[in-house]
Amino acid sequence: MNDTIDFDRYDRIRPIRWTGQALELLDQRKLPFAVEYVSCEDSDAVAAAIHALTVRGAPAIGIAAAWGVVLAAKTIEADDGATALARIEPAMQRLNAARPTAVNLAWALARMRRVLAVAGADWREVLAREAQAIADEDLAANRRMGALGAALIEPGNGVLTHCNTGSLATAGFGTALGVIRAGVAQGRIAQVYAGETRPWLQGARLTVWELEQDGIAPILIADSAASHLMKTGKVGWVIVGADRICANGDTANKIGTYQLAIAARHHGVKFMVAAPSSTVDMETASGDLIEIEERDPGELFAVGGNRTAAERVGAWNPVFDVTPHELIDAIVTERGVIERPDAAAMKAAFGG
Amino acid sequence: MNDTIDFDRYDRIRPIRWTGQALELLDQRKLPFAVEYVSCEDSDAVAAAIHALTVRGAPAIGIAAAWGVVLAAKTIEADDGATALARIEPAMQRLNAARPTAVNLAWALARMRRVLAVAGADWREVLAREAQAIADEDLAANRRMGALGAALIEPGNGVLTHCNTGSLATAGFGTALGVIRAGVAQGRIAQVYAGETRPWLQGARLTVWELEQDGIAPILIADSAASHLMKTGKVGWVIVGADRICANGDTANKIGTYQLAIAARHHGVKFMVAAPSSTVDMETASGDLIEIEERDPGELFAVGGNRTAAERVGAWNPVFDVTPHELIDAIVTERGVIERPDAAAMKAAFGG
Repeated sequence: MNDTIDFDRYDRIRPIRWTGQALELLDQRKLPFAVEYVSCEDSDAVAAAIHALTVRGAPAIGIAAAWGVVLAAKTIEADDGATALARIEPAMQRLNAARPTAVNLAWALARMRRVLAVAGADWREVLAREAQAIADEDLAANRRMGALGAALIEPGNGVLTHCNTGSLATAGFGTALGVIRAGVAQGRIAQVYAGETRPWLQGARLTVWELEQDGIAPILIADSAASHLMKTGKVGWVIVGADRICANGDTANKIGTYQLAIAARHHGVKFMVAAPSSTVDMETASGDLIEIEERDPGELFAVGGNRTAAERVGAWNPVFDVTPHELIDAIVTERGVIERPDAAAMKAAFGG
Repeated sequence: MNDTIDFDRYDRIRPIRWTGQALELLDQRKLPFAVEYVSCEDSDAVAAAIHALTVRGAPAIGIAAAWGVVLAAKTIEADDGATALARIEPAMQRLNAARPTAVNLAWALARMRRVLAVAGADWREVLAREAQAIADEDLAANRRMGALGAALIEPGNGVLTHCNTGSLATAGFGTALGVIRAGVAQGRIAQVYAGETRPWLQGARLTVWELEQDGIAPILIADSAASHLMKTGKVGWVIVGADRICANGDTANKIGTYQLAIAARHHGVKFMVAAPSSTVDMETASGDLIEIEERDPGELFAVGGNRTAAERVGAWNPVFDVTPHELIDAIVTERGVIERPDAAAMKAAFGG
């Protein structure tokens, strides 16, 4: 075991590329079968890509939306930031409406608004610098989180993750998957298990692909096999990301996360949430207040165009759930580790 | 609410048909997109159909295997049952090896052996009568179980089921799905939720299809949405079948059942196992001793021929898990209801 992390080996995937004129997004609907970037030339194309899950993952959505604002600026004439802000606001609203649950989207747009409001004649450059800063800070935060989270893992542990929280979901390296990359790089993690994450199969399609790029061979399981796996004793930690962390530590994340947290507690397996501080929403007191996005039930009826259920079936397709803070052993952000999170510990860490 | 069950309406599907010369099996790999029967002309075809999941569900496997023995008899010459038994034994062994977890398979074959061993010159007729009796008794048991299990459900409850335990898994009516049919017929159940049941999607493909045939409109959910559903308070009972029930009440069933039982207990939702007494295995003291079938990891890589993960990925595909009796509120067989099952209650009900 060592404490260094070889980022040249373990941080090579970049899902979001800014060309100076357009935003290129690695099309996550086509992975792992095709590695193709989609080019967005205007902000509505970015909003559509966020809605369609071409780009997904809370931090990545925020970064893409920030570049979307830069694209919106191309069509605006204004002599100063305040004037530009009023004219860009409709495009920002459309970006904000593309996905409802992740707080990073609104957070990134708020940052863009804030710098724009006080910018002078160089407001276009100010927006571009802010978008780049959001991306750079995300990458740095992930690397920091990786080191902090991995330090919690006793060597020899297996870990289970859910959904995709990797480079694909962020500027790079990943949140929960960054912790896992760091833990593997440091020799702490004996085996990575990945739940396939129905209905969109982010685990099967994205997490497995990402880890294989780094030479890490994960074991894929059905989401419903997680408890059986925990019973074998092969997993010491469940490590997941977050779309929103409330003021009391309650956490919204991909559907199925809550079930993993219940099962982890039942088996004495530890449960870690790794997410940047931009995911923390101190304005929302508890998980009961989070709007849970429900997507098209059709996502449950087909996989890759092949139907998996009969026509005209009723279905319920919530894509997030809330894990109460009582079931979380540690929240890791780039600012530090909060063990046994609750409202007091969150307030001490994040104010508010 | 009423206590009668309209079987003409709620028991119309027959997955196993004996023509007198061949065994016709409703091909469950093709449902719900095609309703096609496969004709098995010899016992090895039946063994292959069991292994390939053309027929699945513990009771249905037992019934199919019994008819498989009748088919094996067609190729045997013998003057009495004992002689025939020795000659049929290799075919029985092949039938027995087709699936390892469900006890019904071995149980049905043991019944066939027992009557054959003492049969005279009419041993072929004896075998055919026994196979028909196994099927008839299964149907009667399911109807009885349905009434017994439904009586436990307070009117107005929603219920969640897993996998397929319906007519398709049995001679007819179903075990857990028989309880649900009875509960709907009696007006007790407000809404049926069905988990899609990865990797083979028995819930999405089979349970939803079956219920729709009866005019019951279920709501399909991802397996990982079960805990989120329970948290809404819309589900009063989880009702599942069993592939093997041990002497202490521990129960093997489709992968994901154990996870539902943990989640149910966490939310104060009741958990019912409904299965015929042929599923009870008093020779196996506890669930730790049950062999858990692991199937081809490839089942996690594709749905209906469409790949869902990259090539050469590692995967773990256990298809059953064990729910400890502590998490079970009621075991329902055709002999009665065992509340809070344990070794003493099981012994009182089943001897041994």
